[in-house]
Amino acid sequence: MPPKQSDSEKRPTIRDVAARAGVSVPTVSRALIGNYPVAPATRSKVLRAVRELDYVVNAHARALAGATTKTIAFIVDDVTGPFYAHIARGVETEAASQGRLCLLCTTHGDPERELAVVELMREQHAEAVIVVGGGYDDEHYTERMTYFARALDRAGSHLVLCGRPSLGEDVPATTVHYENESGAYAMTAHLLSAGHRTIAYLGRGPGLSTTDERVAGFRRAHADYGVPLDDTLILPGEFSKAAGYDRTQELLEWRSDVTAIFAATDMVAAGVLRALRKAGVQVPQDMSVAGFDDIPLAADLTPALTTVRVPHEDLGRESVRLALSREQGAPAGRAVLGTHIVVRESVAPPRQPRD
Amino acid sequence: MPPKQSDSEKRPTIRDVAARAGVSVPTVSRALIGNYPVAPATRSKVLRAVRELDYVVNAHARALAGATTKTIAFIVDDVTGPFYAHIARGVETEAASQGRLCLLCTTHGDPERELAVVELMREQHAEAVIVVGGGYDDEHYTERMTYFARALDRAGSHLVLCGRPSLGEDVPATTVHYENESGAYAMTAHLLSAGHRTIAYLGRGPGLSTTDERVAGFRRAHADYGVPLDDTLILPGEFSKAAGYDRTQELLEWRSDVTAIFAATDMVAAGVLRALRKAGVQVPQDMSVAGFDDIPLAADLTPALTTVRVPHEDLGRESVRLALSREQGAPAGRAVLGTHIVVRESVAPPRQPRD
Repeated sequence: MPPKQSDSEKRPTIRDVAARAGVSVPTVSRALIGNYPVAPATRSKVLRAVRELDYVVNAHARALAGATTKTIAFIVDDVTGPFYAHIARGVETEAASQGRLCLLCTTHGDPERELAVVELMREQHAEAVIVVGGGYDDEHYTERMTYFARALDRAGSHLVLCGRPSLGEDVPATTVHYENESGAYAMTAHLLSAGHRTIAYLGRGPGLSTTDERVAGFRRAHADYGVPLDDTLILPGEFSKAAGYDRTQELLEWRSDVTAIFAATDMVAAGVLRALRKAGVQVPQDMSVAGFDDIPLAADLTPALTTVRVPHEDLGRESVRLALSREQGAPAGRAVLGTHIVVRESVAPPRQPRD
Repeated sequence: MPPKQSDSEKRPTIRDVAARAGVSVPTVSRALIGNYPVAPATRSKVLRAVRELDYVVNAHARALAGATTKTIAFIVDDVTGPFYAHIARGVETEAASQGRLCLLCTTHGDPERELAVVELMREQHAEAVIVVGGGYDDEHYTERMTYFARALDRAGSHLVLCGRPSLGEDVPATTVHYENESGAYAMTAHLLSAGHRTIAYLGRGPGLSTTDERVAGFRRAHADYGVPLDDTLILPGEFSKAAGYDRTQELLEWRSDVTAIFAATDMVAAGVLRALRKAGVQVPQDMSVAGFDDIPLAADLTPALTTVRVPHEDLGRESVRLALSREQGAPAGRAVLGTHIVVRESVAPPRQPRD
């Protein structure tokens, strides 16, 4: 039942809600759409007013329509990967707090599809297009992405590369990256400092910038410690548990001198741990294992996984912030967020060379 | 360098690509945008033609623009939850294969925000609006959602409730649910069959349909087995690892007769396992633990978690399929997907009552 109103024909407006709650119109908007800095007490007042007036959010949405048709597109490889899901949360949360809608597209690791989707987002007049995850080392691909960066820029939109290297100084695209190479360096140094001399890197994705940077850090640490690196120990594999499991089984048959495995991601590490458990190899006594990402369940693996912490959610937030605060024609922004090692229980000094 | 063309002024079109690849125009479109049923050999031919003609996907996108401006909106609580992420993958994959874009919105568990977002999606002319996850047991909320279902229907759009109960026969909304109550029944029966008589249910979300259905299954199994149920053992808590950890610590201080914990989700179970490990309680010898969801790392917990398998990705796909195949004015569709127990290592008969 709508309560008494000055004009019973008229539906309540957002102004009526604001007046009854004793707050401003933008505060009502923030409280309803979910802008975060609204105090709980204020929010309660607004919701009480909404109920008392039987205010239909409908009208509210219309009032906002001008602002909310702006969308931010983000393009991920696979939303179920913890890496992508947490970046997606950061993107979505920040976009929502700035009154934008989010368009999500997935590419299933296909560079051609990624390019097609970026272009579609331009057609959709997305205010910013955020491409999440590693890029592809392919001239054709880089050329096309550069073309799209320029096309988006001309259309008043903006390309953000999140978690991948820059396309170059002269390309109008913002880069939000994390210390990928140095995270891999730090973890490799951690393993070398513990006394490991024969370390396998498990999960080299072919032509992926994420891999190239991690392998570069792996190499640089070996060089700095004066430990020769056996290239055959950089093992190919998808970023999946199954790949970690299969490659570890093969490795155990093939080499008995490896004392540590640096998995490309925590999901790969979960597969590594399972294969080692099945083979009766004790972690960390007989084999040290390290991961990359620090996913929520990394500490719940057995043993708890030593890994590199990547600030996924911050990467997503920062991508939106930089895209929306950029002025047309300004130089492309750049941010690099820090990573650090999280030491748990899966790394120890090698007992002795495995026979 | 563009290759020789009949008219060097003209950029290649999707028709040129189709002709060179020897396939139809829709096949080129499917191969580039990622429709799944394209044979790998066909796809290779298309990609080769794209490269040879230096076809810019731009033109392709424009050709498709009519079809691709259609969007499917899906609204989740939190995209980082494995439950939501996998449903999201199903929604996105199916939507992409039908040439639709996906709008993603998150609500962070706030019913008011969910309502506001549903209405915004109507304003955005989404072809379908898929609301994912449990509903709220609140009259105000149900009334508003019913209102939106009708408003969407009038606007030629359609509401899909994915993973929550129907709003009633007369409301034009499609329901895609899973055997939630009977999944909880089956797991409780599994624990009772093993000999457990004092089982805690951990993680009752207040006023959430997901919880209500699971608790109903928990109750029904107790009744069928003639085992009295102690209501104080249905413990409140968020669906998070932290809640599982905290509630278990409290439970251990408070009750010594509980021999099994049925966690509301696998993430909650991860917290339960951690608290038990810290307290030196052996699983499953001293305490059985079961979860719900079957997330990818459920088998990697220690011990491997016995849980209820929910077909998340299928729920997402089915939601899109039913929404898009529905004819205007047809009765609201309904689907219920099956769940089943996955028996691993975290449940065993009780050794004896804990002292």
